[in-house]
Amino acid sequence: MPAAAPFLHEDFLLNTEWSRLLYHTYAKPQPIYDYHCHLPPDQISANLQFRNLSHVWLGGDHYKWRALRTAGVDEDLITGSASDWDKHLAFCRIVPQLIRNPLHHWSHLELRRYFGIDALINEANAKTIWEQANAKLATPALSTHGILTSNKVAVVCTTDDPADSLEHHAAIAKSGLKTRVYPTFRADKLMAVAAPSVFNAWCDQLGARADADIKDLDALLAALDRRHAFFHSLGGRLSDHGLEALPDADCTETEARAIFAQTRSGRAATPEQAAKWVWYVMIFLGRLDAKRGWTKQLHLGALRNNNSRLLKRLGADAGVDSIGDFPQARALSRYLDTLDRENALPKVVLYNLNPADNYVFATMVGNFQDGSVAGKLQFGSGWWFLDQKEGMEWQMNALSSLGLLTRFVGMLTDSRSFLSYPRHEYFRRLLCRLIGEDVEAGLIPADEAHLGGVVRDIAYRNAEAYFGLEAGRF
Amino acid sequence: MPAAAPFLHEDFLLNTEWSRLLYHTYAKPQPIYDYHCHLPPDQISANLQFRNLSHVWLGGDHYKWRALRTAGVDEDLITGSASDWDKHLAFCRIVPQLIRNPLHHWSHLELRRYFGIDALINEANAKTIWEQANAKLATPALSTHGILTSNKVAVVCTTDDPADSLEHHAAIAKSGLKTRVYPTFRADKLMAVAAPSVFNAWCDQLGARADADIKDLDALLAALDRRHAFFHSLGGRLSDHGLEALPDADCTETEARAIFAQTRSGRAATPEQAAKWVWYVMIFLGRLDAKRGWTKQLHLGALRNNNSRLLKRLGADAGVDSIGDFPQARALSRYLDTLDRENALPKVVLYNLNPADNYVFATMVGNFQDGSVAGKLQFGSGWWFLDQKEGMEWQMNALSSLGLLTRFVGMLTDSRSFLSYPRHEYFRRLLCRLIGEDVEAGLIPADEAHLGGVVRDIAYRNAEAYFGLEAGRF
Amino acid sequence: MPAAAPFLHEDFLLNTEWSRLLYHTYAKPQPIYDYHCHLPPDQISANLQFRNLSHVWLGGDHYKWRALRTAGVDEDLITGSASDWDKHLAFCRIVPQLIRNPLHHWSHLELRRYFGIDALINEANAKTIWEQANAKLATPALSTHGILTSNKVAVVCTTDDPADSLEHHAAIAKSGLKTRVYPTFRADKLMAVAAPSVFNAWCDQLGARADADIKDLDALLAALDRRHAFFHSLGGRLSDHGLEALPDADCTETEARAIFAQTRSGRAATPEQAAKWVWYVMIFLGRLDAKRGWTKQLHLGALRNNNSRLLKRLGADAGVDSIGDFPQARALSRYLDTLDRENALPKVVLYNLNPADNYVFATMVGNFQDGSVAGKLQFGSGWWFLDQKEGMEWQMNALSSLGLLTRFVGMLTDSRSFLSYPRHEYFRRLLCRLIGEDVEAGLIPADEAHLGGVVRDIAYRNAEAYFGLEAGRF
Repeated sequence: MPAAAPFLHEDFLLNTEWSRLLYHTYAKPQPIYDYHCHLPPDQISANLQFRNLSHVWLGGDHYKWRALRTAGVDEDLITGSASDWDKHLAFCRIVPQLIRNPLHHWSHLELRRYFGIDALINEANAKTIWEQANAKLATPALSTHGILTSNKVAVVCTTDDPADSLEHHAAIAKSGLKTRVYPTFRADKLMAVAAPSVFNAWCDQLGARADADIKDLDALLAALDRRHAFFHSLGGRLSDHGLEALPDADCTETEARAIFAQTRSGRAATPEQAAKWVWYVMIFLGRLDAKRGWTKQLHLGALRNNNSRLLKRLGADAGVDSIGDFPQARALSRYLDTLDRENALPKVVLYNLNPADNYVFATMVGNFQDGSVAGKLQFGSGWWFLDQKEGMEWQMNALSSLGLLTRFVGMLTDSRSFLSYPRHEYFRRLLCRLIGEDVEAGLIPADEAHLGGVVRDIAYRNAEAYFGLEAGRF
Repeated sequence: MPAAAPFLHEDFLLNTEWSRLLYHTYAKPQPIYDYHCHLPPDQISANLQFRNLSHVWLGGDHYKWRALRTAGVDEDLITGSASDWDKHLAFCRIVPQLIRNPLHHWSHLELRRYFGIDALINEANAKTIWEQANAKLATPALSTHGILTSNKVAVVCTTDDPADSLEHHAAIAKSGLKTRVYPTFRADKLMAVAAPSVFNAWCDQLGARADADIKDLDALLAALDRRHAFFHSLGGRLSDHGLEALPDADCTETEARAIFAQTRSGRAATPEQAAKWVWYVMIFLGRLDAKRGWTKQLHLGALRNNNSRLLKRLGADAGVDSIGDFPQARALSRYLDTLDRENALPKVVLYNLNPADNYVFATMVGNFQDGSVAGKLQFGSGWWFLDQKEGMEWQMNALSSLGLLTRFVGMLTDSRSFLSYPRHEYFRRLLCRLIGEDVEAGLIPADEAHLGGVVRDIAYRNAEAYFGLEAGRF
Repeated sequence: MPAAAPFLHEDFLLNTEWSRLLYHTYAKPQPIYDYHCHLPPDQISANLQFRNLSHVWLGGDHYKWRALRTAGVDEDLITGSASDWDKHLAFCRIVPQLIRNPLHHWSHLELRRYFGIDALINEANAKTIWEQANAKLATPALSTHGILTSNKVAVVCTTDDPADSLEHHAAIAKSGLKTRVYPTFRADKLMAVAAPSVFNAWCDQLGARADADIKDLDALLAALDRRHAFFHSLGGRLSDHGLEALPDADCTETEARAIFAQTRSGRAATPEQAAKWVWYVMIFLGRLDAKRGWTKQLHLGALRNNNSRLLKRLGADAGVDSIGDFPQARALSRYLDTLDRENALPKVVLYNLNPADNYVFATMVGNFQDGSVAGKLQFGSGWWFLDQKEGMEWQMNALSSLGLLTRFVGMLTDSRSFLSYPRHEYFRRLLCRLIGEDVEAGLIPADEAHLGGVVRDIAYRNAEAYFGLEAGRF
C-alpha cells in the first residue's frame, strides 16, 4: 500500500515547516474567544453532566442529521424515538461514508480531543466508543464547566431574545466559572409582523419583562432600549440578526406606527409592509448598538425551513435549511450608509452564507472603515455550511486580497454543541497553512516575530481588543 | 529544455501514489453507466458506420464550433458548405491554440482511445490523422455498436420527446447489443405556451401518438401519463427538464385550464401565464415520476440562443448558448417541498450551469433527503461548460463538503457524440486525484478496501443501484 | 527558523522550471501595451516631475486609502491636511499589516522596480525610503516620460470625456515621446438623465466643443459622432463604459426624444426612463464603434459611492466603491445580439467586477465570435478588486476552460498611477506559472517554441494585432 500520513496526525493541514512553527508555537497555546454561539445558558448554569455520548454528540447537531438522512437512515434513528444507543450505532455505521465531509474530521476530533479516543468511527468500534465516552462523560472533566475550562474558553457569547430573563447569565456570573459568559441581543420575533400571533405574543412577553405596556411604537422602542441596557449591564456587547437579506426599503415613523398598530390588531403585514418594518427596526437597533459601543452581527443569506414536513414534525433548526441566492449588495450598502451618515454606525461583523457573495461582502466592509477602530467593519469567518476547509480558505483568501487579514477577529463556533471547540483548532491550522505556504514561496517576508504575532492576534488578541468584553484568564 | 511529463501520459491528473492505485485498480476497470446523453437512437439502431472523421468528430459538436469561431475561422469551415476534409484541416490547424481548454484534452483523448493515434493534433499531422482515422472508421470496431461495446457502456439513456415513437429503442432492444439503451422523457415543447404554433403542433403530434384528441387539459395530462407509461414499458426510468429556472409561481387547475384553452386557440400566453403553466405541468410530471419510481433530472441555468443570427441560420444547439444568472433557490425549494408534502417527490438529480450556484444546489438537496433511498436527491455532476477540470473539481468538492461524495451517482456524458466516453476517464482520474491527495495528507484514513469500494461505487455501482435500470454486463 | 525563499525573489510565483523559462525568456522582455488606464494626460504632456514619494505613491491611490482606514488610521493622514511626510510615515507603519493583500506586493515592487529600494516597508525604514526615493524622483528617469520609457510602455490609452479638448493628447503626439498615447471615448455623463443639472451642463460643454447647439436628440447624436471622429483622428480606437449593469430595456426613437427633451427642460428622468435612455445611447455608441472599427469596453458590476459622508468630503473615486451583485446575463446578451443582428457589433472587451460572474461573462463572449477577428469578443483581465493573485488566476482559468487563452489580449493597468506597471510583471508571472504547472504535469505538450510564442502573444502581440493602434517601438 502506498505511503500516507496517519489520519489527522499531529501536523494535519500543516504542509510547510513554517505552518508547523506558527501553529504549534503561536496559535495552539491561545485561549478561545467564542464571540458567537448558540450554547444553552441553562446547561452552563447547571454545570450539566451529559447522560451519554448520543446526548452530547448527536442531540441537536443538525449537520449530523442531514448526513444521516442522506445516507438513507430512517428519521426514527435520527430525531425519533429510537434509543440513544441505537442512534449512536446508526451514526457510527455511516461515518465511513462521510470522508471529505467536514463531519468526518469534526467527529473524529471531538472523540480525540474530549475523550482521548483515537479509534476510527465505524460500526465495529461503536461499542467501545460508546463505553469509553460514557465513562468519561460521567466525570467532572466533561461537565459543561469542565469542557469550557479545559478548552481554555475565555469568552462565550450566547444568543438570546430581548424578552429572555437572562437569569442563567446572572447565575453563571456568580458561579466562579473562569469562562466569562455574555448574552447577545437577537430580536428575531421583532421582525415577525407578517405573523401577528407570533409578534403579539412576543410583544407581550417583552412588555412583561420590561415592565411596560407595549401599546404603541414608542412603548416598543423604549422597551427594546431598556432590555438592551439590561443586556449591557450583564456585560453584553453584541447584537445579532439572521435575515435572508436586508430589505431594500425605506420607512417613515408614520408608516412604522401604522404597521405596528395593524399587526397588534391582528392583521398581518403585507410583504411590502414587512420590508419597511424590518428596515425601520434595523435602523433603530443599529442606533442602540452605536450608542452603547456594541458590535452588530449580520448573518445574511440563509433560506430556512425548506422542508415543511420536517419543519412541522421537528420545528426550526432541524437540518432543512440551505443557502439562498438573494441580492445583498445594494440594501446592505444603504443600511450601513444610513447609519454612518448620522454617526450611528456601530462596529459590524458581516457574515454571508452564499460563498458566491464573498467578494461582495469583503469589499463592502472596506467602504465604511473610518479609522476610529482598526477593522471596525469585519468580514466574518466562514459560517455554517462554509465552516469547513474550502469555505474557511475562501473567506481568508477573500479577506486577505480585499482587506486586512491581520485585523481579523477570527473564528467563532456558532454552535449549539459543547463539543465544537475543535473548529478553532481547525481554523488555526488553516490560517497557519495559508501563511506558511506564502512564506515558504517568498510571498511574505520570513519574520517569525511578526508572523507569530499576527497568528496570535487572529487566534485571540484581535477579538479581545475589538469586542471589549472582559475575558477569563487562561 | 526543462523536464516535463509526457503529454497525457498514463498517469495524467494522478499526482499521488494513492490516486494511481485507486484509478488503475478500481476506477478504470468499471463499465460506463451513461444515464444522461443526447445520442441519436437512430444511429444506434442502424449500427451506423461514420463516413469520415469529420462526421463523427466535428459534426454536431458545438463546443468545437465555438472554439473555431473564437480562433477566427469562417463559419463556412465550421457548419457551412466546405468539404469534410477542409473542415478537418481547419480544426487541426487551431488545436494548438486550444491548450488549457478541455477540448485540447478531449480531442487528443478521442484520437488516442478510439483510433490509437498518439500524434499531436496540428496542421502538419492533419493528413495522417485523417487517413488513419478514416481507415479505422470503416471497421466494425468503430460502428456505433462497436464503440458502445469496446467502451463497456452498460447503459445509455437518450433524451426523447413524449411524442416520439421510440421505435429505435424498441429495435435496439431486439438487436442483441449488449449495451442497454433507454429513453428519457423530456417534454420541452409542453412548456411552449408562449409560442402557440409550436405548442399546438406538438399537442397534435402527442395526441396522434397517444391515440387521443387533446382537446382539453384532462386529455393532455392523460396523454402524457400514457406516454410516460409507454416509456416505462421500454425500461425508461428517467425524466429530464431544461429550464432557465423553475418559475416562482402558483397555478390552480382553473388557471391551467384557461391557459391551455387560450394557447390552443392560438393566443400566446403572457410571461406570467407561462410561468404558471410551467409550474403546473412540472408538478404534474413530478407526480408521474414519483408514481412510477423514476428519477427526475433538472438542468437549470442555461441562457439559450443568444445569437439570433446564428440561431436563424443553424437552429438550436449551434454553440450560441451560455450561462445565465437567474435566481434559483426559492422556487426550487418550493417545487421540491410541494411534491414532498404530498408524498410525491421522486428521486431528483439537480444540475446547475452557473458554478456560482454550486453551494445553493449542493445544500438544497440536503433539505429533502428522507432516508428512503441513500442520496435520494443528488447534486449532479459538472454539466456542459462545467464538464472540465476545475468544473468537476468544484462540483466534487462542494458535494464532499456539503453532502456525501460516497453516495454520488457520478459521471454522465450529456453528449451528442459517440466519442465522448473519455469524459468518464477524465472524471475518474479527477475523483481519484482528490481522494488520493487527501489520503496522502492524512485527511482520509488510508484504507484501500474502503476507498477502492468508494471509487467503484462512484464510477459505476451507485448509479446502478440508484436508477434501477437493468444494465448490460461487461 | 525554517527555510523560506527570499521575499519577492527573482523567481517569485514561478514554481516550475517551465514557468521560469517562459517568464524570463519570453514574457519579461516584451514591451507593455497598456490599452486601458486612467493616467492624467496633462501629467504626461507636462513631463511631470513628482514633488515627493507621497505625491506619486499615495496621492490618488484609493486602494491604499482603504487599507489605511481599515488599519485604523485617521482620515487626516490619508486624504487630509497632514504633511506629505506624515502621510508617508503613516503608510509605512501599516504596511506590515498588509501581508497577503496585493498592496503588500505592489508597494514593494514599486519601490524595487522604480527606485531600486529593496528594504522592507515599515516604520523603521520609512525615513530611508523617503530620502532615497525623493532623491531619485528629482531625476529625469522618474519624470512621467522617464517612467513610460524605462518601462517600455509602447501604448497608453487614457480615459476621456467626449467633451474633453484632447489638447494634451495632441501635445504629447508632437513631443517625441516614444510611448504612443491615445484617448478613449467614455461618455459617463451622457447617461445622467436622472440628474438634469449634470446632464445639461455636460451637453452644453459637448455642444461648445463640437460647435453645435444641442437642442434636440439629433443634435446630440451628431455631436457625439463628431467627437468620436475627432478621437479617431487622434488615433483613438477604444471606447469604454462603466455601468452597474446594462439595462434590460428597449427604447424607441420617440421615447428617446421625449426623455431628452424632458431632461433638457430640467425634469429628472424616472428610473424606467433612465434605463431606456441608457439602452438607446448604448446602441447608438455601439454603432459608432462598429462604423470606425473600434473596440468597446464594458466594465460592469461596480456599486459606487457607498459612503455618502466620504463621497461628500472627497468626491468620487475615494475608495468607497465595492462589488455589486446585479443580474448581468440577459441584458448583456440582448445588447450584443441587437448590435450583431444589424451587423454593428464592434470588437468588445467585457470586464466583470464580481468574480461570481466569471463564468457568465466568459461564456457570453463565445456566443458572438463570428470568425471575422480572432477573439473578437474578449473576456477582460481581472479588474480592480480582481487585479490580484487569485483574481487573475480565476480569470485566466475561466478564460482557458471556456474560451481561448491563446487569443487573450492580456493585461492592462486600469490605474491612476504611473507606478502601476509592475502589475504587468505580476500578471506575466502568473500566466507563466499556470502554463508551466500544466506543462510539467503533462497537461500541455512541452513545446518551447509554441509556448514561448503563446506567452509573447498574451504579453504583447495579441493586443497589438487586436486593437490596431500604432505602437511605440521598444
